[in-house]
Amino acid sequence: MKKVALIMGSDSDLPVIEKGIKVLKEYAIPFEVHVYSAHRTPVQAKEFAESARENGFGVIIAAAGKAAHLAGAMAANTTLPVIGIPVKATVLDGMDALLSTVQMPKGMPVATVAIDAADNAALLAAQILAVTDSRLAALIAEKREAAAREVLKKNDEISSKYSQ
Amino acid sequence: MKKVALIMGSDSDLPVIEKGIKVLKEYAIPFEVHVYSAHRTPVQAKEFAESARENGFGVIIAAAGKAAHLAGAMAANTTLPVIGIPVKATVLDGMDALLSTVQMPKGMPVATVAIDAADNAALLAAQILAVTDSRLAALIAEKREAAAREVLKKNDEISSKYSQ
Amino acid sequence: MKKVALIMGSDSDLPVIEKGIKVLKEYAIPFEVHVYSAHRTPVQAKEFAESARENGFGVIIAAAGKAAHLAGAMAANTTLPVIGIPVKATVLDGMDALLSTVQMPKGMPVATVAIDAADNAALLAAQILAVTDSRLAALIAEKREAAAREVLKKNDEISSKYSQ
Amino acid sequence: MKKVALIMGSDSDLPVIEKGIKVLKEYAIPFEVHVYSAHRTPVQAKEFAESARENGFGVIIAAAGKAAHLAGAMAANTTLPVIGIPVKATVLDGMDALLSTVQMPKGMPVATVAIDAADNAALLAAQILAVTDSRLAALIAEKREAAAREVLKKNDEISSKYSQ
Amino acid sequence: MKKVALIMGSDSDLPVIEKGIKVLKEYAIPFEVHVYSAHRTPVQAKEFAESARENGFGVIIAAAGKAAHLAGAMAANTTLPVIGIPVKATVLDGMDALLSTVQMPKGMPVATVAIDAADNAALLAAQILAVTDSRLAALIAEKREAAAREVLKKNDEISSKYSQ
Amino acid sequence: MKKVALIMGSDSDLPVIEKGIKVLKEYAIPFEVHVYSAHRTPVQAKEFAESARENGFGVIIAAAGKAAHLAGAMAANTTLPVIGIPVKATVLDGMDALLSTVQMPKGMPVATVAIDAADNAALLAAQILAVTDSRLAALIAEKREAAAREVLKKNDEISSKYSQ
Amino acid sequence: MKKVALIMGSDSDLPVIEKGIKVLKEYAIPFEVHVYSAHRTPVQAKEFAESARENGFGVIIAAAGKAAHLAGAMAANTTLPVIGIPVKATVLDGMDALLSTVQMPKGMPVATVAIDAADNAALLAAQILAVTDSRLAALIAEKREAAAREVLKKNDEISSKYSQ
Amino acid sequence: MKKVALIMGSDSDLPVIEKGIKVLKEYAIPFEVHVYSAHRTPVQAKEFAESARENGFGVIIAAAGKAAHLAGAMAANTTLPVIGIPVKATVLDGMDALLSTVQMPKGMPVATVAIDAADNAALLAAQILAVTDSRLAALIAEKREAAAREVLKKNDEISSKYSQ
Repeated sequence: MKKVALIMGSDSDLPVIEKGIKVLKEYAIPFEVHVYSAHRTPVQAKEFAESARENGFGVIIAAAGKAAHLAGAMAANTTLPVIGIPVKATVLDGMDALLSTVQMPKGMPVATVAIDAADNAALLAAQILAVTDSRLAALIAEKREAAAREVLKKNDEISSKYSQ
Repeated sequence: MKKVALIMGSDSDLPVIEKGIKVLKEYAIPFEVHVYSAHRTPVQAKEFAESARENGFGVIIAAAGKAAHLAGAMAANTTLPVIGIPVKATVLDGMDALLSTVQMPKGMPVATVAIDAADNAALLAAQILAVTDSRLAALIAEKREAAAREVLKKNDEISSKYSQ
Repeated sequence: MKKVALIMGSDSDLPVIEKGIKVLKEYAIPFEVHVYSAHRTPVQAKEFAESARENGFGVIIAAAGKAAHLAGAMAANTTLPVIGIPVKATVLDGMDALLSTVQMPKGMPVATVAIDAADNAALLAAQILAVTDSRLAALIAEKREAAAREVLKKNDEISSKYSQ
Repeated sequence: MKKVALIMGSDSDLPVIEKGIKVLKEYAIPFEVHVYSAHRTPVQAKEFAESARENGFGVIIAAAGKAAHLAGAMAANTTLPVIGIPVKATVLDGMDALLSTVQMPKGMPVATVAIDAADNAALLAAQILAVTDSRLAALIAEKREAAAREVLKKNDEISSKYSQ
Repeated sequence: MKKVALIMGSDSDLPVIEKGIKVLKEYAIPFEVHVYSAHRTPVQAKEFAESARENGFGVIIAAAGKAAHLAGAMAANTTLPVIGIPVKATVLDGMDALLSTVQMPKGMPVATVAIDAADNAALLAAQILAVTDSRLAALIAEKREAAAREVLKKNDEISSKYSQ
Repeated sequence: MKKVALIMGSDSDLPVIEKGIKVLKEYAIPFEVHVYSAHRTPVQAKEFAESARENGFGVIIAAAGKAAHLAGAMAANTTLPVIGIPVKATVLDGMDALLSTVQMPKGMPVATVAIDAADNAALLAAQILAVTDSRLAALIAEKREAAAREVLKKNDEISSKYSQ
Repeated sequence: MKKVALIMGSDSDLPVIEKGIKVLKEYAIPFEVHVYSAHRTPVQAKEFAESARENGFGVIIAAAGKAAHLAGAMAANTTLPVIGIPVKATVLDGMDALLSTVQMPKGMPVATVAIDAADNAALLAAQILAVTDSRLAALIAEKREAAAREVLKKNDEISSKYSQ
Repeated sequence: MKKVALIMGSDSDLPVIEKGIKVLKEYAIPFEVHVYSAHRTPVQAKEFAESARENGFGVIIAAAGKAAHLAGAMAANTTLPVIGIPVKATVLDGMDALLSTVQMPKGMPVATVAIDAADNAALLAAQILAVTDSRLAALIAEKREAAAREVLKKNDEISSKYSQ
């Protein structure tokens, strides 16, 4: 199976990234975790992106805060799909990172998920790999049904306790 | 090759969607265009999403404005990756659609692109299909190099005309 | 008397919903509380809304955060009035939920109240039921007068203590 | 049948209100249209609200822009449900009116609809009256189905023209 | 000397108002403090404003949060200058109150100060009374010079400690 | 009678200021109009403010766009009340000017009115002068009643034409 | 004299950049104009920045819209001061570009000017070069005085025409 | 070497400024720290700016919150480059200070850095001084390489620990 790359712009983003690691493990998807800064290590960031496809990656996930350029820098150097996670890292509540990540120019899309949503980024990566992997697609469907059952169970508990 | 679905929430979104159609044609990716509203035709929207994988689709693109629920409604009914295009349809400049599209809850990611960016949504769909399609990946790389050459040509023109 | 439905998109919204439960109890309005997610349990959410009128409901209140689609999903499947409570569930302070709830497209209104204002949502439900229920209307007026007297009492205390 | 009141804060809001008038006519709901300003004619605004219930009204719709206090001023003087339409009247794109209308304090809810959405306000009023009027409820359902058929017709046209 | 009225929309605004009380005491300006809600006690709010001039007031200060209509309701019922203090009372950080207070329609200005800035509101009231009161004007100038001296003293301390 | 100063930061603000000139003429209040920039002519701006009181002014109105410092610069150099008009002069719709004008630090209030609202600024100046001028107060009340009559006349026209 | 580089992310930014060209010509500062995209021509953008100092540049000005990464990409590859111009290129009015440009991470400052303000960017570049160039500093001071005289001339015209 | 001035608008900004002091010390750049308020001590602020160049300063850094006029007031009185640090000092999260600092009018640029980013302001000052100081430029490059090595070391640690 192709690997997923989880890149963070700073090691301070690790708590966010860990939510994504957990999801990838649940799906038994192989992955690499890296710290590359679009600004402090632009060469290494570029090299990673350029060689990602031949190194066996299928999707790159990039998490960054502030003027979040990491996902865009990845996207500029690979034709693999790049998923961007805007990280809340400043007093602006992640709005700076969201706009810096999603408003990409023509020809360089970044698949942006919600602020700090590394779990959803990892799930989206799984969905992308599952386009041609019916076993993985079935696993995603299965976990989704489990989540639905959990909601319905909560509904039973809360409805019987509070309705009147 | 798997197909791409281009769904718009209202036929008034067609001018936006047409930019995506153009890109899919350039890549010779088969696609279907549909008008389904998350609110006015929820049954048909759901049925389309539920059967999309078995009907040969690989990616669903959904464009909607205002309280843009269409991409989320698609995502809730398929395990295929769903790309959301927030459409500027109100006086709030698409910010309402952007937040309604990107801030999805846990377990239901939508790969959000920039406001009105149907061209980038289509390109992202191509990149997703190209994860396992090296010919398509090569075509994306090729067009990207052409775009780079165009920038460099503009640079030559403008630099020689304006520098002093 | 017709019932009020209090639907939350996630059991994490329960603390918000409890303010609404308290108000409905004060007015002795029968109600049911449910957890249905527009994304994780779309079928159940739809079924509840579709049969709400025949099941004796007069108003549906839906509370959700993030890209808050729950109220809209309810509205799409019933002709009963739907009241939406945007819940602060992310770093964006509920602005994402507010815009996702209030900016509904033509033909699908959601009666939106303030962020996290489940008490006002319940009161609005009471006002809707009181359109044809003069006893309930009188009770609302009575409680409102009590609230006014409370303000005036506070005014007496504070005015005499602080003015000079 | 109870009447609906359509109040605008300034005659410059008439083009917005006319979309609501059209909807009420479609449903054959009796209505009165008024111009009352929360600031310039506070006495008349208050008197209208205070006597609205006994004058046969079931719902009050109030449209205002800027620091939009009209809906709140209505709500403060009646126990009828009040629907607020934030009007785009300034360079701030209606965001000032939206927050002034929706963020009401405890005990004084305003059922807020989207910016400039007088059509949805009127439809919400119809839904409120239809809680106890099954003929009106059936008419709303019927028109909704017609709207759905229109979307599906558009889908047929656009899908057959553009898909490939 | 004319009195200043300090009106708060809810007794929960008292901690904000107390900063204004302190300033009025420093200037020995007579004042009254009141709790009147534009929505819960509209009659008393109106009566206070209508009779404020003849009751010896020169300026009315109104503090309110959320959809802050209090200052506007005061302004609608008096020709005295009304100063509005937007109060941070919700998750929207006072932006709702700021826009609800400052964006008043033509003919009904509210002199708006910064969010929660009751001290500046009281000082502005003093400046208004000082237009025709040279003793008060001199006192304001004197306190301002003291504040300037304080800044310069801080400058001396910090500059000598940190410069190098 | 004391004079009102109407200061604009740039002659491009003149169309905004003219709405204020019209109001001051209606009230027969003497006024001076000036162009002083807080940044380009800081000395003249300062000198004007410093000597305004002794030169017979009672209120200073300052209109500026962008990072609007003019009202604050005036306030720093006079103890007269300063009214700030945030001008829409950039793509940010006046929000930059609003925050730059209203969020003044402790000790330096600016009485801020709505974006571009020079008419309300002039009326507020009239209200300030009318604190000790009963003739002017009566004139303000009179014009306000005329405005109310106009609203009621519009109400009659529109109500009889549209209600049914 | 060291040169100034004016880099735009797309040739569509040329109308903005031309305002900067005009200012640099007024100061007779040598400059080069280039079109380099952080995403489409990352290699050339990097190479330009890396060799800018040795190629005789003293300041780099970068103008870009949307998720504006150009100034940051320049800053990551040179120790020269980089001035960023956020360009209004989307429906978000340049707010996306402003936050993407100014909110840079630690160690990589971008000297950000107002949205679309290429004239001020060029003037800031001149001020930077003038730190060690007294002739240029004198020229800046001279032009500033001319601008002040222009304001004062406008003041004379407008004041005499409108004051009364 | 020319000195850097670090000016804060209030001594409450000292914790922000201290991050800048630390950076200037690392680069052994001489500096002075001052507290000058654009509003409370406008004369001293102006005098400092006017004489800064002749007093041996090369760059002025100004930090202020709220309606942050300090950097602009500095810029109006010197031709030295002025760096503005918007300080988060209110409930508006520094957005008020950011817009008040960056949106300067034509002819008066302020080189704005991220909210609270005194470290980056100091580094930008160092970069400006290094335009003509190759030793300082080399030191900046050296520290930047050290920062890059730190990122790469973190990458090694985190990548080997988490990848699988």
